[in-house]
Amino acid sequence: MDKVFAGYAARQAVLKASQNPYSHGIAWVKGSLVPLAEARIPLLDQGFLHSDLTYDVPSVWDGRFFRLDDHLDLLRLKLPLPREQLKQTVVEMVVKSGIRDAFVEVIITRGLKWTRDAPLEDMSNKLYMFVQSYIWTSGPEQQRDGGGRAVLARKVRRVPPGAIDPTITNLQWGDLMRGSGFNIVLVKDGRLYTPDRGVLEGVTRRSVMEAAKARGIEVRLEMVPVELAYTCDEIFMCTTAGGIMPITWLDGKPVNGGEVGPVTKAIWDAYWEMHYDDKYSFEINYTD
Amino acid sequence: MDKVFAGYAARQAVLKASQNPYSHGIAWVKGSLVPLAEARIPLLDQGFLHSDLTYDVPSVWDGRFFRLDDHLDLLRLKLPLPREQLKQTVVEMVVKSGIRDAFVEVIITRGLKWTRDAPLEDMSNKLYMFVQSYIWTSGPEQQRDGGGRAVLARKVRRVPPGAIDPTITNLQWGDLMRGSGFNIVLVKDGRLYTPDRGVLEGVTRRSVMEAAKARGIEVRLEMVPVELAYTCDEIFMCTTAGGIMPITWLDGKPVNGGEVGPVTKAIWDAYWEMHYDDKYSFEINYTD
Repeated sequence: MDKVFAGYAARQAVLKASQNPYSHGIAWVKGSLVPLAEARIPLLDQGFLHSDLTYDVPSVWDGRFFRLDDHLDLLRLKLPLPREQLKQTVVEMVVKSGIRDAFVEVIITRGLKWTRDAPLEDMSNKLYMFVQSYIWTSGPEQQRDGGGRAVLARKVRRVPPGAIDPTITNLQWGDLMRGSGFNIVLVKDGRLYTPDRGVLEGVTRRSVMEAAKARGIEVRLEMVPVELAYTCDEIFMCTTAGGIMPITWLDGKPVNGGEVGPVTKAIWDAYWEMHYDDKYSFEINYTD
Repeated sequence: MDKVFAGYAARQAVLKASQNPYSHGIAWVKGSLVPLAEARIPLLDQGFLHSDLTYDVPSVWDGRFFRLDDHLDLLRLKLPLPREQLKQTVVEMVVKSGIRDAFVEVIITRGLKWTRDAPLEDMSNKLYMFVQSYIWTSGPEQQRDGGGRAVLARKVRRVPPGAIDPTITNLQWGDLMRGSGFNIVLVKDGRLYTPDRGVLEGVTRRSVMEAAKARGIEVRLEMVPVELAYTCDEIFMCTTAGGIMPITWLDGKPVNGGEVGPVTKAIWDAYWEMHYDDKYSFEINYTD
């Protein structure tokens, strides 16, 4: 863990001192690159008026793009740009920003709402992209020591899979009471448990499964009852914005004695190693 | 019915011939009025990035604003403008557009997403408003003759009330398979039936209840089983964008012999009368 985070603070210090206006974030709108805070989208965009959009969040760590293609594969609306051009553009955005640890969001909306004046091309899918400094759902310090969470499934009713398909990334977060969503993985008797349905089948979840395979850890994809959260040995959350985040307290009670467990640590290490593996990531040339 | 629609075609013809750039729609963004097609909102607005917003749709009919205050009462996020100023502004927008039959949308978002550069005021609620020509979920011709609908509740799973509160207007429409949502009212033995929970408690539904009261028609607010749709005498939908819309065919079978029924007609007449009643609407002075 220390090794992965070692260079991060220094890179953040450089970013903070940067005079580059794009260092605070850069956005792509209708073919133009603009500082993120100045980016504007049409009010008539269906992505705003009806949240009719899909998105995904690839990331950059230590100057390397992580699983960009895998993230783009998840976008189920037609890309408004040729895929290679989109990839080149998003790399160019990262380079222009100078950000070496980045949260990258690619949004595709259904296009503009019909009005009697709108030209026909406005009805086609619209693309918005932005790059900003890496976001932590749970930061480096909390990841070292673990953290507490409550099992909301006991009292909060989520939107069921039959109403909105959870395998499609969307921004209709009305049922998420405490901020963003992420996958939960439970560890019991040395095995990982994650639901086989009803959850986002995202890239980070897949990375966890591949990290487990690389470490010889069995993964059980099956119906996971909420009860297992109370009887398992270890728990972690996973999402692009933070990676592998140990949960060491559940509803006020310690999990694994309140310590980050050995299986979570193994997955954590393997997950971050993938960020330096050419099979999963590529280096960005910032001197272009 | 003929009387209500009589002047509409003529007003539409005047609007269509207008050279006023705002006649195609006008929007209010950050204190400025702009043609609707040119209106832009910040990409970082949480209303776009997480559909974190509420909205409502008052309307203007024949130059009269219908139940503006009642619609504003439904907005459960704090108004970013003093209420009277907001009302004056939206009236001014209608006047500037010259539109005499208008669909008016007032949207309040949770403000901008936090970034390290954003000034604090950006975290406060943001207001967007627009006015465009009246929208028909079901148009005048269909209203005269009724129309066919399928009962989707049989096969489509909606987001349940426990997950997202349906009494709060939102634009998270991922579970609406065939376009916008509206309330359904069933008529059986001369009484109206509408669910007492799990539905939007909107202004049009309230207008229906008040119209019924004015005509001495009983309204039953209770749990309404889907089965009643198959055994009732009449069915209509109601929403601001269209008003009272008779359903005369259900799943391919006629309702009330495929004709608009007498109770629906009575509600229809009373609903549109309210648009000319000073108790529910006020005249807009277009000569300002």
